[in-house]
Amino acid sequence: MRDERSYIAQGKVYLIGAGPGDPELITLKAVRSLSVADVVLVDDLVDRRLLVHTRPSARIVEVGKRGGCRINSRASTPQAFIEKLMVRLARRGSTVARLKGGDPFIFGRGGEEVEALRAAGVAFEIVSGITAGIAVPAVLGIPLTHRDAARGVTFVTGHTSDGGNPDWAALRASGTTLVIYMGVKRVATIVASMRDAGFPADTPACAVQNGTLETQADVVTTLAELPAAVAASRIGSPAILVVGEVVRHARTAARATGGTEAAA
Amino acid sequence: MRDERSYIAQGKVYLIGAGPGDPELITLKAVRSLSVADVVLVDDLVDRRLLVHTRPSARIVEVGKRGGCRINSRASTPQAFIEKLMVRLARRGSTVARLKGGDPFIFGRGGEEVEALRAAGVAFEIVSGITAGIAVPAVLGIPLTHRDAARGVTFVTGHTSDGGNPDWAALRASGTTLVIYMGVKRVATIVASMRDAGFPADTPACAVQNGTLETQADVVTTLAELPAAVAASRIGSPAILVVGEVVRHARTAARATGGTEAAA
Repeated sequence: MRDERSYIAQGKVYLIGAGPGDPELITLKAVRSLSVADVVLVDDLVDRRLLVHTRPSARIVEVGKRGGCRINSRASTPQAFIEKLMVRLARRGSTVARLKGGDPFIFGRGGEEVEALRAAGVAFEIVSGITAGIAVPAVLGIPLTHRDAARGVTFVTGHTSDGGNPDWAALRASGTTLVIYMGVKRVATIVASMRDAGFPADTPACAVQNGTLETQADVVTTLAELPAAVAASRIGSPAILVVGEVVRHARTAARATGGTEAAA
Repeated sequence: MRDERSYIAQGKVYLIGAGPGDPELITLKAVRSLSVADVVLVDDLVDRRLLVHTRPSARIVEVGKRGGCRINSRASTPQAFIEKLMVRLARRGSTVARLKGGDPFIFGRGGEEVEALRAAGVAFEIVSGITAGIAVPAVLGIPLTHRDAARGVTFVTGHTSDGGNPDWAALRASGTTLVIYMGVKRVATIVASMRDAGFPADTPACAVQNGTLETQADVVTTLAELPAAVAASRIGSPAILVVGEVVRHARTAARATGGTEAAA
């Protein structure tokens, strides 16, 4: 590591996936990468308990960015600022850990950060993390790709970058389980679009907030009932929605707190 | 843990995702779960270096099952046998770690194992892992859901349990990046089907064997050229295929051995 740094005469950026929430669902590689960082750039949604893996001397920089909202009375950090900061720190010789929720390349804008690092000629390494779309359904015992009930699994967001909707008709025809990130605030609109695209009203569906954490809240219902169920249980962001036959396997008794299902 | 075990008067099964290959890409929770197991049932594709996390006294049982092939001159282990063994061990009071490649619920038949455990009334816990379909593209620097180039990502297998093909036309219409597991042996057939469904010949595509390991082999090309490229580079199982515009971002210089990209 040191040899490489002196050779290229600059630092390095680790783009690290923090996992879905539960601080134990981070990888050994992420822990090692955090432990060598001089500076840690940490997203809002990342559990602060993970900072135990950093050096005492590491500088921690909060780079919150919840869709442009203000967090803790300060302005959210624009993406461009984060990218410039990473480049500047690496060029000064720092080892930088960019700690992002979930996986860096699943709806994390990690792709844009990598483009910025490549353009600047900064060495980097991707440290994959467990994305919420996989771990959160697992807490409920939902086998996303169960071969009797799904032809695979698709991860989408509630709306695309151009402001459009996912092609729900195509997704329905694909026969894959759908995991929808960042959709809970617009759940009524999303469900209406899905119903218009031919998804049956009784398609099993669930919404889970703070999945894998002690604060997890979830509802398991049908697609048609999902908006009312989300409202009634006051489920808000961050949350995922899961739609598909495999949701029939959900057992809300299986919780993140141990995750153990009681013997039936 | 002990209290719980004596209360329910039986053992427990941890269904553990071992991650995509690199032994460092396993979670802290998986390591902890392995460390308390009396018996470890381990799949063929799991790196044996991970067994360092087990107790010296733990019994290791190899339950190889590569699509019915014989491994090391012995018959592969039928799924039903694995399920019965887990139940029997747990009923005897053992803590069982079922260590599976990738994530237990992404094409791992974990769903079937959970059904068997639920039917038998055995306590269990899912410990999610990083699936190859996420970590392996990351090694090449491929941002699966880059919002300029994809509307999400879909994970499918090369063929479905009923012997049919994925609905390639629907998947194409979905605009999502496609990650195809267990498809490399049938890559010529798969590509022909995808071309028939309207995927352009020049769609960026790659194949990666042993992704995240020192032995990683990969080719980055176009959909039409993929079968020839796979044959020329002798890429075999286990491998994933990735098809979509985001593959343009692939840099084969980024390797699992450190995973570091040199400064451009």
